[in-house]
Amino acid sequence: MPETIHIPAREGRAARVPAGARFRVVDLEGRQVADLFAFVAGDVSEYASAEHTRASVDRLFPRVGEHFYTNRRRPILFFEEDGSPGVHDMLCAACDPTRYAGLGVDGWHASCQENLQKAMAGLGHDRIEVPQSINLFMNIPVAPDGSLGWEPAPTKAGDHAAFRAELDCVVVVSACPQDIVPINGGSPSAIALVLD
Amino acid sequence: MPETIHIPAREGRAARVPAGARFRVVDLEGRQVADLFAFVAGDVSEYASAEHTRASVDRLFPRVGEHFYTNRRRPILFFEEDGSPGVHDMLCAACDPTRYAGLGVDGWHASCQENLQKAMAGLGHDRIEVPQSINLFMNIPVAPDGSLGWEPAPTKAGDHAAFRAELDCVVVVSACPQDIVPINGGSPSAIALVLD
Repeated sequence: MPETIHIPAREGRAARVPAGARFRVVDLEGRQVADLFAFVAGDVSEYASAEHTRASVDRLFPRVGEHFYTNRRRPILFFEEDGSPGVHDMLCAACDPTRYAGLGVDGWHASCQENLQKAMAGLGHDRIEVPQSINLFMNIPVAPDGSLGWEPAPTKAGDHAAFRAELDCVVVVSACPQDIVPINGGSPSAIALVLD
Repeated sequence: MPETIHIPAREGRAARVPAGARFRVVDLEGRQVADLFAFVAGDVSEYASAEHTRASVDRLFPRVGEHFYTNRRRPILFFEEDGSPGVHDMLCAACDPTRYAGLGVDGWHASCQENLQKAMAGLGHDRIEVPQSINLFMNIPVAPDGSLGWEPAPTKAGDHAAFRAELDCVVVVSACPQDIVPINGGSPSAIALVLD
């Protein structure tokens, strides 16, 4: 029986996912980026790593049927199904308080980094390295000259991506609170994490 | 008076670089990748971060006149001069023992990760996070479909890149030992780190 974890707009949640289990990240309302992180449950200093994944799949982002790899080059997530336009990012760091200060925000602003740290702290992991996030549905076009755009997510309500854990994992999903840069269409919304 | 640190083929070296000082990384023989890392001297958990740099300069790699940023979004290196064809990478993880095992190497093989760890240990930093390297002169073309190539470095003897430290740094340079994938033209060679 699937368990659905509702992630309110601008918040994050963690879940333990055993090796072999499947999970889905669902954009409930559309135009919403979900920052995904995966840590090895028994040793959170090993985690899904963008640079090791790129070097393994020879692409900016894996295709369905390929893996995400850890910083020790072990497969950690299998990209099982993509029920979205297939636009994802693994180039840009998770937003954090300093990012929002640099964008002119005065005072506190929710961020994917704080959502990650809070979710991990809730499982007893008070100090973690913050990995490059797997930015599902995030639309960062790369121009031929290497310049990056920041475009709205092209997803519609119900679009999703599905993964299988290859190792016992702690998975964290943050419904990205970014409302200055237009990646969430200006209006951050909720995400569902469905444990199949 | 400049100090030149000769980095033999397949090896790495560290240097302390105070804020405001300039250094150059020189490809002595050509066709050689130099993996560059920069850590904040007083707290090596802060380091030059590819994903924070990309998000700050909106490009896969900074241009001359732009900065590299830390994982706390502070400018750490200023990209002062590029005396090379201008082809550099910040997408692919530093090579490590597991990478060579995956490429079919039997037994030990020198790697940029071990070079980094050894150089940092020599300065008393026994446990560090291994950041995404700044892969100077490394030719990883990105195709429109997001696929990555692994091509020989286009540098000739004497080509270089120059930086200014914005914070008191520990800088590590590894003369990449990769001789399976053709990024070093099949024959790793030496690098010079010149502290101006």
